[in-house]
Amino acid sequence: MDIEQLDTPVAIVDLEVLEENILRLQRHLDKFGIINRPHIKTHKIPEIAHMQINAGAVGITCQKLGEAEVMAQAGIDDIFIPYNIIGRSKLERLLNLSNRAKISVTADSDFTVQGLSQVMQGTGIELPVLVEFDSGLNRCGVQSPQEAAELAQLIDHLPRLHFAGLMTYPSNETVGPFVRETKKLLEPLGLKVEKVSGGGSPAAWQAQTFPEVTEHRAGMYVYGDLYGVKHGVSMLTQCALKVLATVVSRPTSGRGILDAGSKVLSSDTMGLDGFGLIVEYPDAIIYQLSEEHGHVDFSAHPRAPAIGERVTIIPNHVCAVSNLFNEIVGHRNNRVEVVWPVAARGMLR
Amino acid sequence: MDIEQLDTPVAIVDLEVLEENILRLQRHLDKFGIINRPHIKTHKIPEIAHMQINAGAVGITCQKLGEAEVMAQAGIDDIFIPYNIIGRSKLERLLNLSNRAKISVTADSDFTVQGLSQVMQGTGIELPVLVEFDSGLNRCGVQSPQEAAELAQLIDHLPRLHFAGLMTYPSNETVGPFVRETKKLLEPLGLKVEKVSGGGSPAAWQAQTFPEVTEHRAGMYVYGDLYGVKHGVSMLTQCALKVLATVVSRPTSGRGILDAGSKVLSSDTMGLDGFGLIVEYPDAIIYQLSEEHGHVDFSAHPRAPAIGERVTIIPNHVCAVSNLFNEIVGHRNNRVEVVWPVAARGMLR
Repeated sequence: MDIEQLDTPVAIVDLEVLEENILRLQRHLDKFGIINRPHIKTHKIPEIAHMQINAGAVGITCQKLGEAEVMAQAGIDDIFIPYNIIGRSKLERLLNLSNRAKISVTADSDFTVQGLSQVMQGTGIELPVLVEFDSGLNRCGVQSPQEAAELAQLIDHLPRLHFAGLMTYPSNETVGPFVRETKKLLEPLGLKVEKVSGGGSPAAWQAQTFPEVTEHRAGMYVYGDLYGVKHGVSMLTQCALKVLATVVSRPTSGRGILDAGSKVLSSDTMGLDGFGLIVEYPDAIIYQLSEEHGHVDFSAHPRAPAIGERVTIIPNHVCAVSNLFNEIVGHRNNRVEVVWPVAARGMLR
Repeated sequence: MDIEQLDTPVAIVDLEVLEENILRLQRHLDKFGIINRPHIKTHKIPEIAHMQINAGAVGITCQKLGEAEVMAQAGIDDIFIPYNIIGRSKLERLLNLSNRAKISVTADSDFTVQGLSQVMQGTGIELPVLVEFDSGLNRCGVQSPQEAAELAQLIDHLPRLHFAGLMTYPSNETVGPFVRETKKLLEPLGLKVEKVSGGGSPAAWQAQTFPEVTEHRAGMYVYGDLYGVKHGVSMLTQCALKVLATVVSRPTSGRGILDAGSKVLSSDTMGLDGFGLIVEYPDAIIYQLSEEHGHVDFSAHPRAPAIGERVTIIPNHVCAVSNLFNEIVGHRNNRVEVVWPVAARGMLR
């Protein structure tokens, strides 16, 4: 089947571009001896995770336990969950998962590490726990090397936990000083920072400029999107995922309405103008989204598309888009090769 | 089970509030003799659609054919799809659906109605088609009564189609003049505007002020949200759907991080500040969302919640939130009574 025969809206992935994206980042990180642990939040598809591992990734990163469960079920055996796992239900699931795969996690508080230690009591597991620190995003993470060192000591002290290093998002110029200062505090105590896990697709290409970072987590690079193009992750031609949509209405000469709204393209602007780039009409602006309609100003083009014409959209934020689809269609040279269920979609817990 | 035992993030619906919301709107529309045809885009759950019909709704509204298929499969037999249905695949599905249930649609172009007529050739179906007109949203819809009248005549003229009236979104003060002018053009031709379908939850409570509107489509009223509270749809206590989340990090004294980000609360601000109201901390501001983290400023409160504490969030835009969950938990007085799959979620085509 040709992609032209697919009904819209549909998310299609060019498999050749996908494979090249996976290889390109792997080669880059290999070149600098940085371990690659891609974040599956972008694709949520076990088959793509296997492609990343087959290309050289050490394992994967999942943000949610439910995503990790789907990936473990699909045979992936090295999973990092850089999230504070809290509460009895999730801790018990973490224990079960740790019996099936090599799981590591992060923490940024005593509360989190106490819970992790307690649930692992009576098992033979030594759960690797990395301390999350804040590199300026103001999200999670300890605020100072002193806090990091104290939490590392608590992890080292508590039964069934293993202090495995430091983690942050994103990698940037603050990481080096923070890591060096933390090591200075821990080394006299005999505590080793085995790994430093950094992240971000834009930062991935500069990963070598942060020599303290031993492992990198990138997610979005695998598909690419307009935000990534703006921030140097990839070129437009390297965007693997696109949305095919149909013009369903042309109420005025300049306005066209697409069958793709916020439930397809998401409302994430990522600081960009509009809600995606229409490949065939690059000067058109998707200026507004209703839930099931994309509102487009085609007036910059001499000819607006006719009703029934199909267009190809590169989204602003591909992670949010793939999370809205139940399946993704993989094609090669426009021939449909595979339909992947987005198996870890909606695994919110 | 008590809702306190549910793991987070989870979307819960207070069944008593839900039932009251359904009844309240039904009573209001009944009082003024306006037909109620609720839009299921908000809940996407067949069981709730049945509740709406049992309360007096004539049928339902779906925005996508795939949603209508799920609802028809669940036994709902009167479905309005106010969307331009275009392309062979969708037209064939529409034909199949029309053999199973009473289906009506809209169109705003010759292209759409020609397709509808062609696919119905050789059947005994007389597909009811309403003409969509633009009441100021600048989305789909013909732009003038003249265009509406011309399209109505084409529908009347084409085989297997029945001109069934006019449709717009939202209902407002422009509807009356538009409808009256269109009727003036059609009546001399012997063409009757049998129904006028208006829509919108905010407009639902003023539906009686648009006497030309014979039928109303409201979606969001069923759950309610902050946008609805701001626009008079319901009071805060009438918001049926809430998201339970857990504080997973407290990096600073004023900042708390929740396990609910844009993949739970959606990025829709709807023009409001922040991304939802935390019931227990009404002066806190969910000022930013990452995909799996909600960033909250609790500094307006003397005490910020501890790590592990659970909070209850009323979202800005409930239609987008329920679209992100695979299931919704219904409770009565905090006791879990039912777990509904969001069966029509992700039916994008």
